[in-house]
Parts: sequence; C-alpha cells; structure tokens
Amino acid sequence: MFRHQKELQFEVKVDKPDPMLARQIQEVLGGQFGEMTVMMQYLFQGFNCRGEEKYKDMLMDIGTEEIGHVEMLCSLISQLLDGASPEDQAEAAKDPAVAAIMGGINPQHLLVSGLGGMPTNSNGVPWNGSYIVASGNLLADMRSNLHAESQGRLQVARLYHMTTDEGVKATFRKMLARDRYHQYQWMAAIEELEVKNGVVVPATFPPEAEKESQPEAYEFWNLSEGDASSEGLWATGSAQDGTGDFVYVKEPVPKGQDPSNPIPSESLHHDLNIKK
Amino acid sequence: MFRHQKELQFEVKVDKPDPMLARQIQEVLGGQFGEMTVMMQYLFQGFNCRGEEKYKDMLMDIGTEEIGHVEMLCSLISQLLDGASPEDQAEAAKDPAVAAIMGGINPQHLLVSGLGGMPTNSNGVPWNGSYIVASGNLLADMRSNLHAESQGRLQVARLYHMTTDEGVKATFRKMLARDRYHQYQWMAAIEELEVKNGVVVPATFPPEAEKESQPEAYEFWNLSEGDASSEGLWATGSAQDGTGDFVYVKEPVPKGQDPSNPIPSESLHHDLNIKK
Amino acid sequence: MFRHQKELQFEVKVDKPDPMLARQIQEVLGGQFGEMTVMMQYLFQGFNCRGEEKYKDMLMDIGTEEIGHVEMLCSLISQLLDGASPEDQAEAAKDPAVAAIMGGINPQHLLVSGLGGMPTNSNGVPWNGSYIVASGNLLADMRSNLHAESQGRLQVARLYHMTTDEGVKATFRKMLARDRYHQYQWMAAIEELEVKNGVVVPATFPPEAEKESQPEAYEFWNLSEGDASSEGLWATGSAQDGTGDFVYVKEPVPKGQDPSNPIPSESLHHDLNIKK
Amino acid sequence: MFRHQKELQFEVKVDKPDPMLARQIQEVLGGQFGEMTVMMQYLFQGFNCRGEEKYKDMLMDIGTEEIGHVEMLCSLISQLLDGASPEDQAEAAKDPAVAAIMGGINPQHLLVSGLGGMPTNSNGVPWNGSYIVASGNLLADMRSNLHAESQGRLQVARLYHMTTDEGVKATFRKMLARDRYHQYQWMAAIEELEVKNGVVVPATFPPEAEKESQPEAYEFWNLSEGDASSEGLWATGSAQDGTGDFVYVKEPVPKGQDPSNPIPSESLHHDLNIKK
Amino acid sequence: MFRHQKELQFEVKVDKPDPMLARQIQEVLGGQFGEMTVMMQYLFQGFNCRGEEKYKDMLMDIGTEEIGHVEMLCSLISQLLDGASPEDQAEAAKDPAVAAIMGGINPQHLLVSGLGGMPTNSNGVPWNGSYIVASGNLLADMRSNLHAESQGRLQVARLYHMTTDEGVKATFRKMLARDRYHQYQWMAAIEELEVKNGVVVPATFPPEAEKESQPEAYEFWNLSEGDASSEGLWATGSAQDGTGDFVYVKEPVPKGQDPSNPIPSESLHHDLNIKK
Amino acid sequence: MFRHQKELQFEVKVDKPDPMLARQIQEVLGGQFGEMTVMMQYLFQGFNCRGEEKYKDMLMDIGTEEIGHVEMLCSLISQLLDGASPEDQAEAAKDPAVAAIMGGINPQHLLVSGLGGMPTNSNGVPWNGSYIVASGNLLADMRSNLHAESQGRLQVARLYHMTTDEGVKATFRKMLARDRYHQYQWMAAIEELEVKNGVVVPATFPPEAEKESQPEAYEFWNLSEGDASSEGLWATGSAQDGTGDFVYVKEPVPKGQDPSNPIPSESLHHDLNIKK
Repeated sequence: MFRHQKELQFEVKVDKPDPMLARQIQEVLGGQFGEMTVMMQYLFQGFNCRGEEKYKDMLMDIGTEEIGHVEMLCSLISQLLDGASPEDQAEAAKDPAVAAIMGGINPQHLLVSGLGGMPTNSNGVPWNGSYIVASGNLLADMRSNLHAESQGRLQVARLYHMTTDEGVKATFRKMLARDRYHQYQWMAAIEELEVKNGVVVPATFPPEAEKESQPEAYEFWNLSEGDASSEGLWATGSAQDGTGDFVYVKEPVPKGQDPSNPIPSESLHHDLNIKK
Repeated sequence: MFRHQKELQFEVKVDKPDPMLARQIQEVLGGQFGEMTVMMQYLFQGFNCRGEEKYKDMLMDIGTEEIGHVEMLCSLISQLLDGASPEDQAEAAKDPAVAAIMGGINPQHLLVSGLGGMPTNSNGVPWNGSYIVASGNLLADMRSNLHAESQGRLQVARLYHMTTDEGVKATFRKMLARDRYHQYQWMAAIEELEVKNGVVVPATFPPEAEKESQPEAYEFWNLSEGDASSEGLWATGSAQDGTGDFVYVKEPVPKGQDPSNPIPSESLHHDLNIKK
Repeated sequence: MFRHQKELQFEVKVDKPDPMLARQIQEVLGGQFGEMTVMMQYLFQGFNCRGEEKYKDMLMDIGTEEIGHVEMLCSLISQLLDGASPEDQAEAAKDPAVAAIMGGINPQHLLVSGLGGMPTNSNGVPWNGSYIVASGNLLADMRSNLHAESQGRLQVARLYHMTTDEGVKATFRKMLARDRYHQYQWMAAIEELEVKNGVVVPATFPPEAEKESQPEAYEFWNLSEGDASSEGLWATGSAQDGTGDFVYVKEPVPKGQDPSNPIPSESLHHDLNIKK
Repeated sequence: MFRHQKELQFEVKVDKPDPMLARQIQEVLGGQFGEMTVMMQYLFQGFNCRGEEKYKDMLMDIGTEEIGHVEMLCSLISQLLDGASPEDQAEAAKDPAVAAIMGGINPQHLLVSGLGGMPTNSNGVPWNGSYIVASGNLLADMRSNLHAESQGRLQVARLYHMTTDEGVKATFRKMLARDRYHQYQWMAAIEELEVKNGVVVPATFPPEAEKESQPEAYEFWNLSEGDASSEGLWATGSAQDGTGDFVYVKEPVPKGQDPSNPIPSESLHHDLNIKK
Repeated sequence: MFRHQKELQFEVKVDKPDPMLARQIQEVLGGQFGEMTVMMQYLFQGFNCRGEEKYKDMLMDIGTEEIGHVEMLCSLISQLLDGASPEDQAEAAKDPAVAAIMGGINPQHLLVSGLGGMPTNSNGVPWNGSYIVASGNLLADMRSNLHAESQGRLQVARLYHMTTDEGVKATFRKMLARDRYHQYQWMAAIEELEVKNGVVVPATFPPEAEKESQPEAYEFWNLSEGDASSEGLWATGSAQDGTGDFVYVKEPVPKGQDPSNPIPSESLHHDLNIKK
Repeated sequence: MFRHQKELQFEVKVDKPDPMLARQIQEVLGGQFGEMTVMMQYLFQGFNCRGEEKYKDMLMDIGTEEIGHVEMLCSLISQLLDGASPEDQAEAAKDPAVAAIMGGINPQHLLVSGLGGMPTNSNGVPWNGSYIVASGNLLADMRSNLHAESQGRLQVARLYHMTTDEGVKATFRKMLARDRYHQYQWMAAIEELEVKNGVVVPATFPPEAEKESQPEAYEFWNLSEGDASSEGLWATGSAQDGTGDFVYVKEPVPKGQDPSNPIPSESLHHDLNIKK
C-alpha cells in the first residue's frame, strides 16, 4: 500500500513560461526512457520479486521514489505552460523572434490536457507498457535498470543545453544527480550478482547442453567488410568468466543449409500449384 | 550495401510440426527482445556511428549477423507450421490429447501469413521501432546491447524446456551459444569504454555544474517500509568511481515545495472560476 | 445497410487556408475524443445492441450522424490545406510573421495525404480501436458516451479561440451545438436507466455476495496527506442509492498481508537459487 | 512524494494455481479499464489539478490507493502462475481435461515475465497512455472517472463467474466493493460540480456565440430507419438545464453544401490534370 | 450525410455458436485487411477526392457499402458468441473434445464486449489508422484498393475451410463474391488511369530531372547469391511503357562513398572526444 | 546469411544542414511506405517463400538492396542534422527567417538519437510490423509491392519540391529511378502470375462454391446519391477474366434480415432484464 506526502521530493521552480521546452521535457516524462518508464519498471520488478528480501525492498524504495519524479515533471511542465493560452500566444506572435517557436508547441498541451503534463513523449506518442521489463531474472533486469538510467541521464544532459532558464536548470541538476546515484546503485547490484551468478545470463543453463556449440560461444564473425573490428577487447583474449578464448573469424562461411519449404495444402490458397 | 548468401548461418531442422511452439517462438523473433530488435538496433547504431572506426565496423559485423538470425527463425517457424493446414488440424482434433493445444495456435499463422513467420511477438503484437535504442553515446548503447542479449538468451533458455523436439533444441543451442558470445562481446566493449570515459553516462556533463546537488548523487532514499535495502553494496562503501561515499537515508524528508498551479485563462474552459 | 447523400450535414466554409489550424483540428477528427471515436463507438454499440429496440435505433441514428461529422471535418481540413503546396510555403516563408507557423505544419498533410484529412490526431498518432467502448451494458456505455461528448465539446471550445477565421468558427459553432445536444441526450438515457437499474454498474451482481465487504463499499481512504478531501459530498452523507453512509477513514491501515512469492522451478532460469 | 508500506491493502490469497485465469485477470490489471488506467488517470488529474484544494487532495487519495491495487493484482497473478512451469504443464497435459486449457495460457507469462504480472491486457496488448484522460476540466474528467469505475466493476463481475477459486473470489469481492464506492464517489463529485457549473461541459462557452445554432442544440436527427428512438427521454420534454425543448426531427435533410475541392498544385503529384 | 436502413446487405445466419471461430473472424473485421480497413480507406479517399466527379461518386458508393460489411460481421460474431457465457463454457468443458478449443477463445469477447464484435484483429490487437491509405493520387490509391481486396478475399477463403457451419459458409460466399467484384472494379479503374497517366506513379515527375539516373531506372541488381532471378519478365525485355530495356546486373558494385559522420558538438554528450 | 560492404549503393551528399528537412525525410525512412517497410516486406516474403526458386531469389535480391536504402537514408539524415546542436540553433534563432523553422524540428533527433536517423515517421510515430504483408500468395503480395513502390515514389517526388539542396536532390533522383524500376519489376511479376493464375486472388477457390452468389460477383451497388459512378469501366462491359458482365444496380435494396440478438446469460451482467 502507498501513501502520498504533499511536498515534492525537490523544489521545482521556473523563471518564465516556455511551452516549447514543455514539449521537449515530455521526452523525459513519458518517453521510452522517461520517468514513467523507470517508475513502472521498478514497481513491476518489485511487485513480482521473488527470493532475497533485500532486492525487493530496494526495488520498492526506488520505484516509490520514481512516482515522485513523475509528479515533479508534471509540476515542471505545468509551470512552463502557464501563460500559453491562445490569447497569450496571439500576443506573442506579434514579435517574430518569439513567434518563431510557436510551431514547436505540442497542440495537445492546449487542446487535450489544458496546460498539464501528459503520458506521452516529446512527439506526443503515448507511453506504453512495452517500454518496461521485469523478467524475473535479477541480473538481466538490473542490466536494464543501469541502461535506463544511462539513457535517462543522457537525455537530461542534452535538455540542459536547450534552455537558459535557471529555475529549470536547477531541477535538471537534481535529476542528473539522482540519475548518477541510480547508475552507481545498479552497478553495485550487478557487481553483487555477477560475483554470485557469473557474468552470463541466465546462469543456470547447463554448460553440458551447450557443449556441442562450444566454438560458437567465443567466435566473432567478421560479416562486414574491413577488419577494424579485430582491434577491440571482444576479439582477443579470454571470455570474462575465463571459460574460453575469443576467436576472430575473419572469413566466415555459413554452416547451415539452403532452406527450402514445401508447398502446403491447397486450403491455404497459395495458388502455387497452378500450371498454365 | 548488403549481399545475401543462400545458406543459413546454422542448420535449422525440425523433427515434427508443432504450431503452438511456432507461436511461442515468435517471441524471440518479433518480441521486445527478439532477433528483429537486435538486428535493427545494431544496424541503426552502426549506420549512425560517429568516431572511432572499430566500433562502427564491429556494429556492422554483428548487425549483419542478426539479419541472418531473423532468417533462421523464419525458417524454423515455417517448418514448425508445415502440416498446420485446416484439414490437418481437423484430423488432429480427433485425438483429445493433441486437440488440447489447438486453442494455443496463432490464427494469423494460417489466415495472414499462410504458414510463415511474422514480425510480431508470441501474442501477435507487431514489432515496433520503440523497442530499439541508438542514442549516439556508445557506452549508453552498449549497456542496452548487453541487456538485450541477456533477455534474449533468458527467453531462449526458457523456450528450451517447452519442447522435446531435438531438431529445434539443436537450433536453440546455437542461439544460446551466440547470445553467450554476444554478452561477452558487449561486456568487453563496455569495459574499454568505462576505462576511457568513467562509469557514469554521460561522462562530459561538467562536475562543477553538479556541485550544488552533490549530496543527492550518493544518497539511497529509503522510501519503502523496512530497511533490508541497507544491506546491499549500493548502500555502503564508495561510488564505483571513487568520487564519494554512499549514504543510506533511513528517514527521508521531502526537500521541495507543495506545488500549486494558478488558474489559467478562461479560454481554456477549465470552468474553475465558476461561482455558484 | 447504409446510404450516402451528397450534401454535408452543415455548411463548411473557410475564409482562408491555414495549415497549422488544419493540424490542430486533426485532434477532433482522429484523436482520442475525435469524431472517428464517437462514430465508431456508437456504431459498434448499435451493431452489438441487445434488448429494447429503442436503444438500438437511437444508437444507429447518432452513429450514422457521426459518420457525417467525420466527412465534415475532412472537408474542413482539405479547405484549410488548399494553398499549402511547397511553393506556396516557400513564398510564405519570405514574411517572417507568416513563416513563424511553418514549423507547426503536419508534414504528412503534404507527403502522405496530399492535402486531405487523416485518421490521426494533432500529433500524427493514428486513431486506434482502443479509444472506443461497447461493453454490452447500456448504462456503462452511455456514461462513456456522455463523457466522450464532454471532452469533445471541451476541445472544440478550446479550438474556437485558436483561430479568427469566421468560416471555421461557424462550423465550430454547429459542432458545439450538436455536442451540447448529445450531452443532453446521453444524460436523458442515463436518467432512464438509473431509474430502472439503480446507479451502480452492473446492477445484477448479487448484494449478498458483497456482504462481507460491505464496509469497503462506503469508505473514503485518506491515503494522501491533509484532509481537505473530507469536505466533499463523497465523504459525508449517504450513498446515492441509500444503501449505506459514507465513512471518511482518516488514518487508514492496510488489511492485507506482506506478500511473498516462492521461488519457482529452475526451468524458468531465475537464477535465484545460486549460492556462492 | 510517495511512500510504500509492506502490507497489501487487502488480503490476496489463491486456493490453487490457474494460469488461464491469470491471463484473463490481466484485463483488469493492464487493459483499457484496468487498475493501471485508474491509477495513472487519477494521479495525472491530481498532479495537474488547479483550483480548489479539496479536489486535488481527493484525487491524490484515490490515485495513491490505486497504485496499491496494481500491487494487489500483481500478487494475485503471481500466485495463480505458481506451478505453471514448463514441467508442471507437461505433467498437466497428461490429463485431457486439464490440458484443454493449456492453449489459453499467455506465453509471455513464462517467456517474458517469468511468472509475474505484466503491463498488458488479457490478449497481451501493452497498456498505453491514450487510455487515460486528464483535461483540466473537472466535470469532464469526473465523468470519465465514473465511467472507468463502471467498466472496471463490470469486468470484475464477469470475471467472478469464470472461476470457482474461493480465494480469488474473496479478492474480487473487495474489488467490487471498492469499485462500488468509487462510483458513488464520482457521482457525488459530479453532483457538486453540476450544481455549480450547470450540466453541459464546458460551462464557460458564451451562450450568445451559440445563438445562431440554437436549434441544433435540441434536435434529435432520425438518420436511421424506424422511429423507435422517438420514445426515449432524449426525444421529448426539456433539456436538463431547462434552456430549451427537444425536437424529434423525423425526416432530416442536410443543411450543408455538396463539397468540392479544387485541384491543387502540380508539385503534389496528384496526376489529376493529365489529359490523354 | 449518411442514412441507415435496418436490414443487412446480405443475410447472416449461424447454425450453432462457435466462440473460437468468432475470434478467428475478427481478423476480417478489425485486422490489417478487414472490413474496417476498406471502409475507412474508401471513405477517406472519397472525402478527400479532388478532380473528376465519377471517381468520388464511385468511392462513396463502395465506402458506404463497406460500412454495411462491418455491420454484417458484427452480427455474425454476435451470433457465434451466443451461448459462450461462463456457465455454457463450464458445461462444455466436461466434454474434452469440446473443451479442447476453449483456450482459443478471445477473453475480451466475454470481459470487454459482452459477446459482441470488437475493433480488433484475431489476436486482439486494436485496428489503427495506419492500416489505411488515401494519398490524393488516384492510381496509387487504387493499386492499394486492389491489393486490399486481394488480401481480404484470400483471408476469407482460408477461413472458409476452418468451419463446417453452413450458415457461416453462406455468408462467406457472399463476401467472396463481393471481394471478387471489388477486385474487378479496381482493376478497371487502374486500367482507365494507366491509359491516361502511364503506368509509373506519379506520372508528373519530369523525365528530364531523372535523366542523370536513367540507367538505374531499368537495372535489376543481383544482390543475392544465384541468378534464378534472371529468368523473370522483370529481367528481360522492355519496360511496360516502352521507355527503356531492362538490364540484369549480375555482379553489382556500389556506386556511393564509405560514409563517415563528423563528431558533433560536446553539448550532445556523445563522449566521443574523451581521451584516456 | 548476409554480408555488408562499406560503400553506399549510391552517393549521398548534402550541401548544408537542414534539420527540418531531416524530420520530413523520416517519412520515407520509417513511415508506412518508407524504406524500412519495403526492406522488411521483401525480406519476410523471401524468407517465407515456397514454390518456384526464381521468385524467392528475386525477393532476396531486392530485399537485400532495400537494407542498403535504409542505410543511405540514415546517412542522409545524419548529414542534414550536422550542425543542429543546441548552440547552433541558439545562434540560428537570432535570424527570424531561419528561426521560423525551428519549431519544425523533431526534438528526438537531439534528445534521443543524438543526430541520427530513427525508426519512426515524420511525426515521430515508431515503425511497426503491421505496415508489412507477406501472405504466402505471390500475386496478392506482389500487388502490395507494386502499391508500396507507388506510394514510396509519390512521397519522394513530393519531398523533391521541399528543398533546394542540390546534394539532397541528387539522392532523391536515384531513389526515384529505383522506385520507377521497382514498379516495372512488380508489374512484370504480376503479369506473369496473372497469365498463369487468372486475375482474381486467390485463384483456387472453387467456382462452383461461388455459384449461388454469382450475381453479386459482377454488381456495382450505387449506394451514394448520384450516378456519375456509372460512367467508369467498372460499371459496363465484361469482367477482366471474361466470366461475366458488370451490372450497375442503380437502386439497390438490402437482401438480408433485420438482425436481432437475444439477451444472453445473466452472468454477463448486461442488466438488460431489469424491470422497474
């Protein structure tokens, strides 16, 4: 069960309205790596968590924090939209320099939400459940979490240069700091789990079953022209778990057959048997 | 520019048709972490790659390999669907044990694709472009790649137990081996980049700008009941880059304001000023 | 079976082209509460209607009217787009005041539809079938209809302030009038049904089955800080059907258990049993 | 800011696993009117709320409660999926009566979530942001809320008959009770607002602007054959706000023009000017 | 403006309920090439039509017919779902042969639509606006129409073998006949337009602008192994409009550059300039 | 299996950056008829192809070519985005004429892709698998292919007028030439197949089964007012395969029943039996 406290986690202040920035910020609210994504991802991982208590507790801590981040961004966007009424815009349009950005406004901020944040990205595409992952394998999921915080912080860093509003920038700095911590956090969880499980997900697929395809587990296939790719750590040395050495297959040849499918029953109406 | 060779990368053989398994395998063809995802993800990352040649070359190698994995899975699904014509099924339905699984068949495999693989997941939801990521930040993207291969291998491992068909299992073993290698590969690339960039994405956001929110970059906020979460590596010790020490905030209090939005212009028709 | 008459239900005239307004109007054509939604919603409710003839007949009347509203909006958008060819726009761009809005044009109106209306909203997101509802329970569905007309009229009222084109405004006034009538209409239908069924949907779930959870059917749970919420009609007095009195639970406590899920079979590859 | 308490709002117990029921229950978790919808809808309405404090406070109370309902349903689904591992199912398949339902299992519950709830409906379609509404007009939105609780309770009532599991039924009874209360709650809020605003949304569109389309605000257009539709309250008597009397237009004729669009610029490549 | 007549275009009768067939038939109601697609496609093409009257009139004729096909399919599905209530199914489940198909039922037909047709395909994916095309170029669009009727008739032909219900089959035969006529119809329209415009869409792109890429307009590039593709009409002889002769490029070489993108501004946080 | 060659199929050069054009070009990369669509469509048709070798080989040739077209467009978009960093834009905004288009930039090109092409259309809607078709019936699918190339060439022709950049125009000319050839190619394939199969898809549905609905296979139903539609080739003369003569049904009457659905079981909670 959850409870709500009136104050925001961090202060959210805006120096002056900016409806185009409001549109851009929607990316980190309702986009692929926005706060809705991490909120729903951590909550579902937490709700579904099985096994050691500390992981579930930790996921609930951070999932609950992220609901508050969605709240902060809605407040930020509402403040940026104050003063974006049709008449304000008609007034603004008289100054060409200001008018210039009018085309960049999200029309739904006026028509649909009445100056509020929306569950959509910066192009108005609705957030959807396929943005998140909760697989039941902790190491796999925490790799997703580390990745989500990496993309999220990258996007906030890019947004940071798209405004000169000091109020907004202060909010972004808090978000950058939390995203930094959350990257540390998932790295720490991953480190714990890799020590216990080994580095390959899933850990429990029996090695003997993979024996026959042993070579393929260490080969780099050079399928594009040029061999600059032979220079990376992925092409030389040993696997991270020491189970084998990497092989750079410079001129790979296919090992399979030329596939050929039979003509199926007439009832599928392929019209493949028709003879002139 | 690309070229196609007739043979499959690995042999794909099926002992006997199994349309329900064909439906389940769609998950690793056209699902969130299916082969279409890694194919399109690596190709877009490669096409958009800027900077050091070896990364682009490597992305093109593996992106090109993955097109061939989509090809292999289409072949696998076609073979599993041979013998799933309406009359075969009517025949099968006479044996209750066989009939039992008929409800689990994807009707589109008959009606829409005529016994071929489809760009959809195991529930028939079409693959879409928001499954992939290509951000222009190599470290961020390679964390996504490592994650995608982790989920992909996990799903194939789960599928492995859902059939007793030795032909199919042999194909799965090749896929498990490649997904194992690809996990090694992205770990190696990540290791290289973390040494160069540091572990936090993006690396270039200026630390002085983050100074004022320094504390928040190391704090764990305990927002759910219980403090089992204090036991993990994320709650004690130092950040992975040694820039600070973690703090477990056992009883966090909000630092922001109680947000309150003004009533906007009448032209938005909020009806908020109506007095009885 | 349906028939088409050449004339539009109401006159649709435009004083001068305005491609940005054309984009904005897409919201009330192909958006969540656009004319496509009410058209498809009333038609599906009518097609699927069971029971008293007058409801089906009424749904078919209004569903059929709404097809004509989609037609009117396509005509409106086509007229607003006349004169939005690439060369017209290049000409327009010479005047900065006019150029200002060019960025706000929907590129698909040129590239994809060739200056015609599209089945998408104001951000270009395609209309989809999950916007509509036809549940087979008349009272439930008519509440949806009243709601859809409320949002639809609100959006048209907002659009009304975004143009000074008298031709367009006249069309909007007709739409506002019809949306006003349609709100009356659904209120009337709801009133009839609430008298017959009672106010809670569905009416036929047996009260004795709900007996054990009787208290929870009248309790307001105060789960957010502050108790301003105690001031509304929802917190005091009796239920609308007189079956009980509302209770404001000021300090609610959970009644359930701390859920804990067992670790499942190894074949799911959770990696949860691994011991270092 | 939010906080989490370990216990569920109500007890969630399951007598025995039932993976097909787990799939069906996904509808009320991640479907159009599932708990994710009401949770996100009330939270966004609350975050964006402007004007009187008591409405915002009330929306935050119930939005926060609904996060806990998502949590309860995830617990319910996890419990129903325990024992749905591949080997359990292979065992089950030996009994034709049990096998019968195997085709009805959601394959993603095994492959993707590893036996946990998912943000998708009963057919596996991901939840998306266009399910919700937060328009900034309180009366419009509360009509949506009443509607959502009507559909939600209807679906739970239907689910109630699809199982004989007493544990699950007890959970459903709690949900039915809460959905009953929530219907009362929104009716009470609507009553308050209709008294203040009048019954038509939005209230503030100036009546004088509608004058010229006065007739159309009270007319029922009989566009489908038969006039059973003349029997309802919508066809006779006065508008609910007493501003006019309904008129049943038995043989309506169009009032608009036969629309005809000019041929646009050649640069749109319509090929309409080609003469043979 | 539109009008509705009570009778269906053709008789729709069902011998006995079959909820699994109801699910399968959803494909031709709300799938990619279902009746909703052709209905919306022809209506939008008609609404947006510019130029010669006879094309618009014809599009409105057939678009209006297709609304009635959606109506027929809703009736068909409702009849197939009669008798699919939970208790009917519990009863049915006692017979293993009947129970076998229970897993194949669309749970939304019970939970969401209450035994009515839905705007979704056979897997429950909602119909969406990107299924249709109305480009403003008549020849292009009529090629789409011919294609849609080809896929539509193919799917009905496949469905025909999935049932032995004579009532349903009679309805399918009417649909097959109409889809046959509609194929003739679009072929006739295409023939007219090809005579006038020539066969390449669009006709009005100036040939002189294409001069420099003249060769590429007639070359077949053999980019996959093997040259069986040299045997078709596309590889030999002249273009259909006699403007050139086809060339089979057996060993194609790229004509472009090795693309290389510069490293962009630091403010995009690519982290590409970091030197260890 | 596939291989990649470093050079692009054709040269891709850009005279100067233009982020608004980059957004518009996304339509032909990731839109309904963009290069991703033809690439995936031809590859799936090729992978699933059964029957004569030359068709599969040809589909693999062109599908493989199209992967290279996606690559070309990513290169084109990246080049157009060079110089679209936030600071470049701030600089540009000082000139109102340049600023005018800033609102038309896709914010995701900065925030999400870091100046690279994306798998989305010109409004940012992600590409999805329901854009493609691979039905197993060659004639049906090749009609789709001809149509896709018609829409694709139309969109490129429209784009051609939206820029004066000679570098970009040269790339467009190559695309127009290839799309011209691909139209010839599919026409040639269609011609071959129509000679063999006849013109109606599918060819194998037994004519005797259609006998009873013979008339409906040749009738044009005039369901919209006016009979301009009687003037086309579809209304007079004989069917293209000579099997019958067209009939223009000037005043069509419905042949079906007035459908009426029974009230279902109480357990569906329709509330239809409630008597006051």
